[in-house]
Amino acid sequence: MSAPIVFHFDFSSPYGYIGSEKIEALAARHGRGVDWRPMLLGAVFKVAGTAPLTSVPLKGDYSRRDIVRSARFHGVPLRMPSKFPIATQAPARIVVWQRGRDAGTTPRLVKALYRAYFVDGRDISDPEVAADVAGETGVERAAARAAIDDPVVKDALKRDVDAAIAAGVFGSPYIIVDGEPFWGVDRLDQVAAWLERGGF
Amino acid sequence: MSAPIVFHFDFSSPYGYIGSEKIEALAARHGRGVDWRPMLLGAVFKVAGTAPLTSVPLKGDYSRRDIVRSARFHGVPLRMPSKFPIATQAPARIVVWQRGRDAGTTPRLVKALYRAYFVDGRDISDPEVAADVAGETGVERAAARAAIDDPVVKDALKRDVDAAIAAGVFGSPYIIVDGEPFWGVDRLDQVAAWLERGGF
Repeated sequence: MSAPIVFHFDFSSPYGYIGSEKIEALAARHGRGVDWRPMLLGAVFKVAGTAPLTSVPLKGDYSRRDIVRSARFHGVPLRMPSKFPIATQAPARIVVWQRGRDAGTTPRLVKALYRAYFVDGRDISDPEVAADVAGETGVERAAARAAIDDPVVKDALKRDVDAAIAAGVFGSPYIIVDGEPFWGVDRLDQVAAWLERGGF
Repeated sequence: MSAPIVFHFDFSSPYGYIGSEKIEALAARHGRGVDWRPMLLGAVFKVAGTAPLTSVPLKGDYSRRDIVRSARFHGVPLRMPSKFPIATQAPARIVVWQRGRDAGTTPRLVKALYRAYFVDGRDISDPEVAADVAGETGVERAAARAAIDDPVVKDALKRDVDAAIAAGVFGSPYIIVDGEPFWGVDRLDQVAAWLERGGF
C-alpha cells in the first residue's frame, strides 16, 4: 500500500468537516489510507496574521452561504452550529491521545466528533461533551476526559500543531499527497486527479 | 436567452484569468452569455482589511504553487509574471470604455489583456502596453490610450467598483448566477451544477 494521505483539519472548520466525510472513500479508490491530523487554526491565525473567514468583512456573509451550499453540493449533512467558531483543544487532544493507543479507531472518532458539532450542534469545545462523544464511539469515556487535561497529551498536540505550521499548513482541510499540498475541500478534484495520474 | 452570468474579475488575479478562459463555454452550454465586470482588488483590500494572497505569511508559498498547478488542472496556459501583483486601472478602464461602445468585442479584449499578462508576461499596468494590446485586438489604439486618462472613464470604473463592493464582491473571480454568488475558479463546478439544476 502506498503512503497514506495526510489530512490536517481543525474541528471548528466546516470545510474540514465536509472533507472528513469524503476523504476516506477517495483515498480508498486509490489504495490509500488516511493519516488524520487535528490542528488548531487559532495558532495559524497568530502566525499568518489572519482571522476566521466568517469574521472578515465582506467574506463573512458569503462564507456562511457558501458553507451550507458546499455541504449540499457534496451531499454532506450540515447545520451551522449556533456557537461558531469554537476552541478545539478538547476534541483534538482526545484524537491525539486515542491515535497513540489504537489508530484503527481514529476515523470513527474524528467523524463522530465532527458530526456531533456540525450535524447535532453539540458544543465539542466543552471537555465533558467531547468526552461524551468519544464514549459513544466505544472509547473509555473517563480516560478520554482525563486525556484532555493530561500535560503529556497537551504537549503532544502542541508539538503536532507546531510541526504542521512549520511544514506550511495554514488552513483546514490541508491535504498532503506524496508531499504535494492541497488546501481546501475545493481541491478534492485536484487530489483525485493527482492520485489518478501520479501528478499533473 | 436567460440573464447573463456576471463575471467580476481583477486583471492581476491569476484565478480570475483561469476563470476567464473557462466561463464562456460553461455559460454557452446553458444558453447564457457573460457580463464582464473588471474590478480593483486593491479597493476591496482596503474595505476588508485583507491583502494579496501571495503576500500573506504561509499562504504565499502555497498559493504560488497552487496557481500554476490549477492552471495545468484546467488546461490553461499560464506563466507567473515577474512583476506581480500589478495595479490594473489601465486595462480595467479600457474595458469599461470599450464595453460602452461595442460590448460584443469585450470578451476578445478581456482575454487578450489577460493573456498578454499571464502568458506573455507583458506589464499591462503600463497604459502604453495596455493600449498596445487593445490595439492588437482591433480597437483603435490611440482612443484606448486616451480613455485611460479620461475622467469620465475613470469615474465610470470607480462607480462600477464601488457598486460591486456594495453588492458584496470581494474576490476574483466572483461569479453571480441569477443572484447566487460564487467566489473563486474552484466554484466553477458549483456554477455548472447550479445552471444545470436551477439551484441545489
